[in-house]
Amino acid sequence: MPDITNDPLRKSWIDVPENSDFPIQNIPFGVFLTREDIITIGTRIGDTAIDLGAMHQLGYFDGIPLTDDIFLQDSLNDFISDGKKTWRLVRNRIGDIFDSTNPVLRDNENHRNIILFSLDEIEMQLPVQIGDYTDFYSSKEHATNVGKMFRDPDNALLPNWLHIPVGYHGRSSTIVPSGVAVRRPNGQTLPVGETQPVFGPSQRVDFELETAFITTDANLMGEPIPIEEAEDYIFGMVLFNDWSARDIQKWEYVPLGPFLAKNFASSISPWIVTMDALEPFRVKGPKQDPQPLPYLQQEGAHAFDINLEVSIQPENTEETLVSTSNFKYMYWSMAQQLAHHTVNGCRVNSGDMMGSGTISGPTEDSYGSMMELTWGGKNPIKMKDGTERKFINDNDTVIMRGYCQNDEIRIGFGEVSSKLLPAFDSSQK
Amino acid sequence: MPDITNDPLRKSWIDVPENSDFPIQNIPFGVFLTREDIITIGTRIGDTAIDLGAMHQLGYFDGIPLTDDIFLQDSLNDFISDGKKTWRLVRNRIGDIFDSTNPVLRDNENHRNIILFSLDEIEMQLPVQIGDYTDFYSSKEHATNVGKMFRDPDNALLPNWLHIPVGYHGRSSTIVPSGVAVRRPNGQTLPVGETQPVFGPSQRVDFELETAFITTDANLMGEPIPIEEAEDYIFGMVLFNDWSARDIQKWEYVPLGPFLAKNFASSISPWIVTMDALEPFRVKGPKQDPQPLPYLQQEGAHAFDINLEVSIQPENTEETLVSTSNFKYMYWSMAQQLAHHTVNGCRVNSGDMMGSGTISGPTEDSYGSMMELTWGGKNPIKMKDGTERKFINDNDTVIMRGYCQNDEIRIGFGEVSSKLLPAFDSSQK
Repeated sequence: MPDITNDPLRKSWIDVPENSDFPIQNIPFGVFLTREDIITIGTRIGDTAIDLGAMHQLGYFDGIPLTDDIFLQDSLNDFISDGKKTWRLVRNRIGDIFDSTNPVLRDNENHRNIILFSLDEIEMQLPVQIGDYTDFYSSKEHATNVGKMFRDPDNALLPNWLHIPVGYHGRSSTIVPSGVAVRRPNGQTLPVGETQPVFGPSQRVDFELETAFITTDANLMGEPIPIEEAEDYIFGMVLFNDWSARDIQKWEYVPLGPFLAKNFASSISPWIVTMDALEPFRVKGPKQDPQPLPYLQQEGAHAFDINLEVSIQPENTEETLVSTSNFKYMYWSMAQQLAHHTVNGCRVNSGDMMGSGTISGPTEDSYGSMMELTWGGKNPIKMKDGTERKFINDNDTVIMRGYCQNDEIRIGFGEVSSKLLPAFDSSQK
Repeated sequence: MPDITNDPLRKSWIDVPENSDFPIQNIPFGVFLTREDIITIGTRIGDTAIDLGAMHQLGYFDGIPLTDDIFLQDSLNDFISDGKKTWRLVRNRIGDIFDSTNPVLRDNENHRNIILFSLDEIEMQLPVQIGDYTDFYSSKEHATNVGKMFRDPDNALLPNWLHIPVGYHGRSSTIVPSGVAVRRPNGQTLPVGETQPVFGPSQRVDFELETAFITTDANLMGEPIPIEEAEDYIFGMVLFNDWSARDIQKWEYVPLGPFLAKNFASSISPWIVTMDALEPFRVKGPKQDPQPLPYLQQEGAHAFDINLEVSIQPENTEETLVSTSNFKYMYWSMAQQLAHHTVNGCRVNSGDMMGSGTISGPTEDSYGSMMELTWGGKNPIKMKDGTERKFINDNDTVIMRGYCQNDEIRIGFGEVSSKLLPAFDSSQK
């Protein structure tokens, strides 16, 4: 553990607003366009973006084994592929350079002008080129709620759920960063009581409150990642809104799973918060009963205490908080998900993304989707502007935020915010 | 239509063995390592591989708008992204240069020595970097057989099947070219009559006889590809063995679909046969009843008459033909699959791959998987060496072949051949 970098008493010479998600102890990684329209890899302290490509050219990473162009790229994939030891060396060096007592860059105005940007000068991009994206289904509360609504209330959990971190493959091509608007999907649905499907805009567009983790390349095809090594191959996490169309999903998903109901869009927060930064917030997950099979067994604390919030902001009005949850509720850990995913020899690459599945807590205000919060649309949510929501309306913006907080420090993800545009209308093209 | 390039009477100055899949009318595209270990894009006539990167450097594609390095790449993605007009210009030019009457390259020994390779001098690679891979489920016979075996024999087809080209997302990272051996997966299964799952090597590893098509980038996120345009965005096809572990699948797939049962490996034939080469083998598909929704309706002939065969070759013995099928049996066309996939605005990129789903014909010897051929293991297949197969044994090689044939010409895919290795044993690592 890089203790100095996580030292809660450390201050930066960059100003950090109170309650910022990005103190000097965070040091997330992202990709952005600079004011000169150059793409670079960067980090963030407070509300200042830091150009790591420029820092590297100016020699600030001397002594760390990095290729010259490692940060002058449009994705973090190559850097992530360098492995955990390198991630730590870079993160520790960044902490050192921006430490309030370190004058080297602090007192070099010329270098500061090259390296530092205000947030309004940059445009955040997708941080990784996602080869494969997998979504898990690892919240017991969510799986139980879904089972109660759509299957048998008395046997809500399916027989495999307590034995397997259930997951399925998703679509990489439509994962977009915060700020990119998303279109309501058109598709087939089966109206209640009918036998013939109809076509049109989904009437039940929903968010799913998730996190996702990003992997490095870890195994050869045909070989598993043992559970005790799995955490070493997780670079960091983002917030993840797995946009879903419930009516399309209901008609299409048997027997091969959700497809068009999910693959029209997923939105992520643009800064990847490293597992090293999240280390102080490691907690024990829920007790697992029955005990999983040996390849999924782990001792110790493998959950993370991350506060999560979802708000809906109708156009031109203030937002309404609709859910408050926590990542620590997840039944299956990220290490268990990764060990399971690879136990059959499935190859994992640098930049692959794995979603948690909807994160629902134990109380009704902690559910991670409108489907659960409104119980299938039966109990609409009152918005501050006086309107009601069963699902997401056109031009609503869904905002998810996440942060860890203890007595000494707050480490956060910022937000993933995305507006739902009306459905595409072919006749108006 | 490039009539000259498809003219069945055209001969090449390169020798083409009788019954070759690769006459001068085929001109498939692939990626290979040359004898100098240089990676290049190439084509094939008879048993001669042709280095398109070298041809381009030597000026053979002058006048066609191509970047200098378009063929000196480790994937076809950029070339495919250039679009149909460019594919045709290149394919027509290749036909012209290798026409028996064209002396330019034929009589230039120096150039021939640079451009031409025998097959044993090269090593075929994956032809595209696959961003996203989707697998459909579009054979009515296959879906019916599965429904009979696992659900209700009297209502074998699920209610959505005749309305939707059902599909689901798969894993790109484990798609490998012909010749790469594949490991039997380990995983969780639920023994018959038990309530607790066990862990170990799958006992029911199966092939799935499929084809797959490769797309170009065709739409903006949020916009659909209309069905009448869909074929323009399909570059070509390969043979596809969607390796499957039936026992793992059975335990894991409800409710989100197959995951570890499929993502350990899929194998493809390395030469992409273009839709232009397949054009003479266009036929009408099965009548669709009920009529699909308007966004899936099409007139005319959108199926292709492609003969398909599967053989199993136990180690050190001859192969046994176990299935003879045809791609023309598919209920849903590739154009319908692509229109459906994007009707919700899902973005499709260059190099994306879409599998047909298991291709089963109407007769018992035309089923596209061991599960169907042996009816769940009940009717083992007799092999020429006297052994029997319910599923695939360790060290068996599964070979799929595909070709179109009419009175005048044969256009084929070659083969996808892959050996099943024993399961990974952690204790021996």
